[in-house]
Amino acid sequence: MVMEAGKEKTDKVILGVDPGTNIMGYGLILINGRNFKLLQYGVIHLSKYTNHALKLKKIFERVSGLIDQYNPDEMALEAPFFGKNVQSMLKLGRAQGVAMAAALAREVVITEYPPKRVKQSVTGNGNASKEQVAAMLKKLLNFEDTPKLLDATDALAVAVCHHFQKGSNKATSRSWKTYIAENPNRVKGQ
Amino acid sequence: MVMEAGKEKTDKVILGVDPGTNIMGYGLILINGRNFKLLQYGVIHLSKYTNHALKLKKIFERVSGLIDQYNPDEMALEAPFFGKNVQSMLKLGRAQGVAMAAALAREVVITEYPPKRVKQSVTGNGNASKEQVAAMLKKLLNFEDTPKLLDATDALAVAVCHHFQKGSNKATSRSWKTYIAENPNRVKGQ
Repeated sequence: MVMEAGKEKTDKVILGVDPGTNIMGYGLILINGRNFKLLQYGVIHLSKYTNHALKLKKIFERVSGLIDQYNPDEMALEAPFFGKNVQSMLKLGRAQGVAMAAALAREVVITEYPPKRVKQSVTGNGNASKEQVAAMLKKLLNFEDTPKLLDATDALAVAVCHHFQKGSNKATSRSWKTYIAENPNRVKGQ
Repeated sequence: MVMEAGKEKTDKVILGVDPGTNIMGYGLILINGRNFKLLQYGVIHLSKYTNHALKLKKIFERVSGLIDQYNPDEMALEAPFFGKNVQSMLKLGRAQGVAMAAALAREVVITEYPPKRVKQSVTGNGNASKEQVAAMLKKLLNFEDTPKLLDATDALAVAVCHHFQKGSNKATSRSWKTYIAENPNRVKGQ
């Protein structure tokens, strides 16, 4: 079914993920037309696992669990492309890789956004602090609690950023092949 | 069941993987006591996919498929820890991450080996060429064909390396938790 521009699919779920090697944040929002609301957000504490492979397993299990529970249509990933050194980037790449694999295994389309673009999209300022991002999300999503861990709001922010992007209100294609054919420029990291 | 030192479990399958962002090599060997034989080896060509996310999906699908087909007890990963730059290491980390996720999802224990250790283990020379590694594997595994792509023999080499390591002849623990408890030093990349 081809939907007209401007028309929106009802009830779409976006999973935002901010994968790190010590804390992984996640956030889920429900889109209904132009409205959206908070479904869930939280963090996975990984620093307690001293073993790198076990951290990866926990990320994979939790992201898979969230997908099974909320059945998101799309996943938005906060993905810095540069880091301090090759070692840390290899570890970050692995953390991103297992989170992406959980989505790929379930045919959930992935879009990546660099941190600056997420901040710009949510607050209008690409250099906004995590606190500013959290404050804007509280307004946008009407929640009161201040999350103790700002990694959770970072993950929510990338979900909201994805919703704000041009084209994210299109009818969702759950087929990866179709999606890529229709959106050659949507999948980052080429 | 606790097995005595020196005794070996009959019929263990090791999957060797050499993940790259352009070509991913894989090789499977069957261990029977002190004997081992070639089951399968090959490569996944990834350079034809210009899209990075699609490459990751192909890696995940193929590794998952190999695991479903051959039911390996353990996976050995050739994993360089250093690379040219942070960008290439992030991409390599993602490729490794999705391959690892395929194993983690099926409770296959992963052990990583740096390339030098693989070459040392197979040929006795940590600086051996890919051709020298391939030649030794042909002798060890009694196969005639020279693989056109040496990435496939690299993957076989890491499987053989894993078999040669002290402790790899132990009874296989298929529970990740048990494995880590029993082998705190076996899982690399901590």
